[in-house]
Amino acid sequence: MSAQLRFVLLLLTVTVSQCWLFGDFLGIKEKELDELALWPLPQKIQSSAVSFKLSPGSFQITHAKQSSAGPSCSLLENAFRRYFEYIFGDLKRQEKSRKKAFDSDVVELQVWITSSDPECDGYPNLQTDESYQLSVDEPSAVLKAANVWGALRGLETFSQLVYEDNYGVNNINKTDVSDFPRFPHRGILLDSSRHFLSLKVILANLEAMAMNKFNVFHWHIVDDPSFPFMSRTFPELSQKGAYHPFTHVYTPSDVKMVIEFARMRGIRVIPEFDTPGHTQSWGNGMKDLLTPCFSGSSPSGSFGPVNPILNSSYEFMTQFFKEISTVFPDAYIHLGGDEVDFSCCVHVLLDIVTATKKGYMVWQEVFDNGVKLKSDTVVEVWIGNKMEEELQNVTGAGFTTILSAPWYLDWISYGQDWQRYYKVEPLNFPGTDTQKKLVIGGEACLWGEYVDATNLTPRLWPRASAVAERLWSDKSVTDVGNAYTRLAQHRCRMVKRGIPAEPLFVGHCRHEYKGL
Amino acid sequence: MSAQLRFVLLLLTVTVSQCWLFGDFLGIKEKELDELALWPLPQKIQSSAVSFKLSPGSFQITHAKQSSAGPSCSLLENAFRRYFEYIFGDLKRQEKSRKKAFDSDVVELQVWITSSDPECDGYPNLQTDESYQLSVDEPSAVLKAANVWGALRGLETFSQLVYEDNYGVNNINKTDVSDFPRFPHRGILLDSSRHFLSLKVILANLEAMAMNKFNVFHWHIVDDPSFPFMSRTFPELSQKGAYHPFTHVYTPSDVKMVIEFARMRGIRVIPEFDTPGHTQSWGNGMKDLLTPCFSGSSPSGSFGPVNPILNSSYEFMTQFFKEISTVFPDAYIHLGGDEVDFSCCVHVLLDIVTATKKGYMVWQEVFDNGVKLKSDTVVEVWIGNKMEEELQNVTGAGFTTILSAPWYLDWISYGQDWQRYYKVEPLNFPGTDTQKKLVIGGEACLWGEYVDATNLTPRLWPRASAVAERLWSDKSVTDVGNAYTRLAQHRCRMVKRGIPAEPLFVGHCRHEYKGL
Repeated sequence: MSAQLRFVLLLLTVTVSQCWLFGDFLGIKEKELDELALWPLPQKIQSSAVSFKLSPGSFQITHAKQSSAGPSCSLLENAFRRYFEYIFGDLKRQEKSRKKAFDSDVVELQVWITSSDPECDGYPNLQTDESYQLSVDEPSAVLKAANVWGALRGLETFSQLVYEDNYGVNNINKTDVSDFPRFPHRGILLDSSRHFLSLKVILANLEAMAMNKFNVFHWHIVDDPSFPFMSRTFPELSQKGAYHPFTHVYTPSDVKMVIEFARMRGIRVIPEFDTPGHTQSWGNGMKDLLTPCFSGSSPSGSFGPVNPILNSSYEFMTQFFKEISTVFPDAYIHLGGDEVDFSCCVHVLLDIVTATKKGYMVWQEVFDNGVKLKSDTVVEVWIGNKMEEELQNVTGAGFTTILSAPWYLDWISYGQDWQRYYKVEPLNFPGTDTQKKLVIGGEACLWGEYVDATNLTPRLWPRASAVAERLWSDKSVTDVGNAYTRLAQHRCRMVKRGIPAEPLFVGHCRHEYKGL
Repeated sequence: MSAQLRFVLLLLTVTVSQCWLFGDFLGIKEKELDELALWPLPQKIQSSAVSFKLSPGSFQITHAKQSSAGPSCSLLENAFRRYFEYIFGDLKRQEKSRKKAFDSDVVELQVWITSSDPECDGYPNLQTDESYQLSVDEPSAVLKAANVWGALRGLETFSQLVYEDNYGVNNINKTDVSDFPRFPHRGILLDSSRHFLSLKVILANLEAMAMNKFNVFHWHIVDDPSFPFMSRTFPELSQKGAYHPFTHVYTPSDVKMVIEFARMRGIRVIPEFDTPGHTQSWGNGMKDLLTPCFSGSSPSGSFGPVNPILNSSYEFMTQFFKEISTVFPDAYIHLGGDEVDFSCCVHVLLDIVTATKKGYMVWQEVFDNGVKLKSDTVVEVWIGNKMEEELQNVTGAGFTTILSAPWYLDWISYGQDWQRYYKVEPLNFPGTDTQKKLVIGGEACLWGEYVDATNLTPRLWPRASAVAERLWSDKSVTDVGNAYTRLAQHRCRMVKRGIPAEPLFVGHCRHEYKGL
């Protein structure tokens, strides 16, 4: 390792020891800070130098006796197994020859769901309580949460508290964590239209999202270039609008799998059917849906947005969104509405979706163009220029807002651009407290012009992790030096778990990525 | 597919049909152009619309009767199998139930090595003749080359001529190709010091290099951050200088494997041991090698470059480079010499390497600083600023030059930066014909600050492909629209062959990448 780099690391360590203090109580020593590397940083944490060992032969994650959830809660059972494997890797539990644990061991993590309905079979939503309390002590650690959603977040934190000592043995320090998210909407946008994304890629990124406590998958599923969503009502849409009707589509069961895989990780799936612009691919399978363009008095062969003159357009949209509202369980559908000047049409589409009993999200242009919106509409601010002014206006008009403008991760550049994402303060705009409260979170967007299965995952991680911490941790957690130290280790943890998260800078991971 | 995109593609097609004409003779119809997608474009090609089929059950690659090479030439035997698999994928040859071929089939590719020594067990070098002639006709195609190196390039071209028809059947058109590289040195620099690169990653990129007719792997193997090269003479260097002495080193047999894998693909391995700066990691295992820095009158604990005052430095370097000269068979060693002001020391190092009977390459600073260089020194021009002036000066002084300044691929940016790499004309500097002839090629450099196994391969490909064509094809091959069409398909071909080459823009591949 170079002297220069060593100097940088030294600098970071000093910064850490100076800047780590935040929240209400704290007592971690410097050495452990490096090993903890929690990401995103919990709201409150108290850790001591007392450490315990965890043995794959004796450790188990169990339902607490008082818990309202039990072995029939497959979401938790699944999560217990996932986190056991994250902690111990390929090491098998030696069920039969289970040895007696030593005194200094943590032998179990008891998960205690406190509310009467653990929501094992439910879906997370905007109001979901994701808070949890975690107490690590021997012989038992206890994770307390109102429901399974908080328990999932706590399991992730527990797994991040575990570290390998020099002998490769898993250790965990005596620790108390009390944690909750700063913002309830913490999303990732992936675009499966400009390039088709295989289920494998989507599921892997849902896993990575859970490792970063993201809770919304904004699925920009169709757009101009292709229509991979297979509709039961209008199969021609993907038959003729996908890149290929067999190899480049999401069947109904694929979509179900994505939704269920996400649910098991406490992640909402909000599909975006961007209308009335960005619909070129819809026109392939739906005759007369798009507005024909004219060259003089004859059709030019190209098309504009959805044709607002024809009743058939509305009939189609009504049926289509009826199907969408049953396929996707989330209370919200994203309707797009960006980059088109067609306010008349947008209004009717909003009514169509309202009739399905769903709420809607829209890109900021719909608001900017003065379209009449339901009061529970979520407006997504994406235009970087005059972002503060837009936040002020949208919230000033009383609308709920999410922010993605500073987090367009497809715009790559040389160097550590995660720091730029990290330094954003979402509430840094002129407005009242009431206005600030209307900002419910943000999204990191990875548009698909230049990404597909070959490069999406390393391009997204750990750059999106910077956004994850901004949206979860306390407002005061802003030290970039401290973040570097933790994030470098968090990315190695993701790599160890099979996610090809790219490096922040020069260095190495103990367990490097084994793939290509 | 969107109307907009369709328009772009239409535009490209038009551009292609207008701009394809070059070289001496040509007769390809528009339809076939798309399907051919040769990369890099051969010097001369004549293709007709007459197409033949290739069956995995009957097609074979064989030694021509007149060839000086035969089944004992394992380099060719290995290449035959590799290209058979590239062409037919997982389809097995049905050895037993081999059906009679139809009249319109190409049933064999005869490889005819014309010189008395096919060089089966040799190594490619700067003087290697890589030219080949390929004639595709039924029932036999013939590939003629002076030696195995030209044959390897011709096999790649043959495999690129094969295309799938709508039934998934492999077709090839009646074609004549006469081809040779414009520049003899076409390299890729990878940096295994800032991040350790697994053998798997290095070998995969050697495969991709061969697909692009690159012929030099410039292995920047050690540098300040780590020393992964395991020396037999000085094992402490990696023992103490690598990120980890077991998991993050290249053993002698690893290095041998890289060299042999590269040789089988006609690729030279030029190791770089950057001295006397960039040697921080050397100091860990070699006491007193580096110059101690002082803070006032006491050592500060940090170190500068190799200590030029001590005789032991030179004794060490003599022994070390003696080993290096036997480990790496190439006639050249890259000695670095960049980013350091130490001309006294550099001179002696050059003499040390000269004593091992190796030629050396150096970064431009060594020339700029007026160090006395052997006449056969290769000077690598890397500083982007005043590149033309530097080329003029270096060649004006009579030195052989390679160019990497415009091709630092680690400097990523949004969008299609491959076009910028593609538009470079290496000989576009003021100078005589004699000076221009001294420019023997160039290198695409992917420095390791921000890349490791997680993201290296998609970041390198197909961006480096732009450099590959610039260095292989005729100077007149400069049309970006035509290049886009071919390169988009070439990247899909790399993906089909297992290389996660990233997309150029919106679109899809028939066979998408299956990994993560």
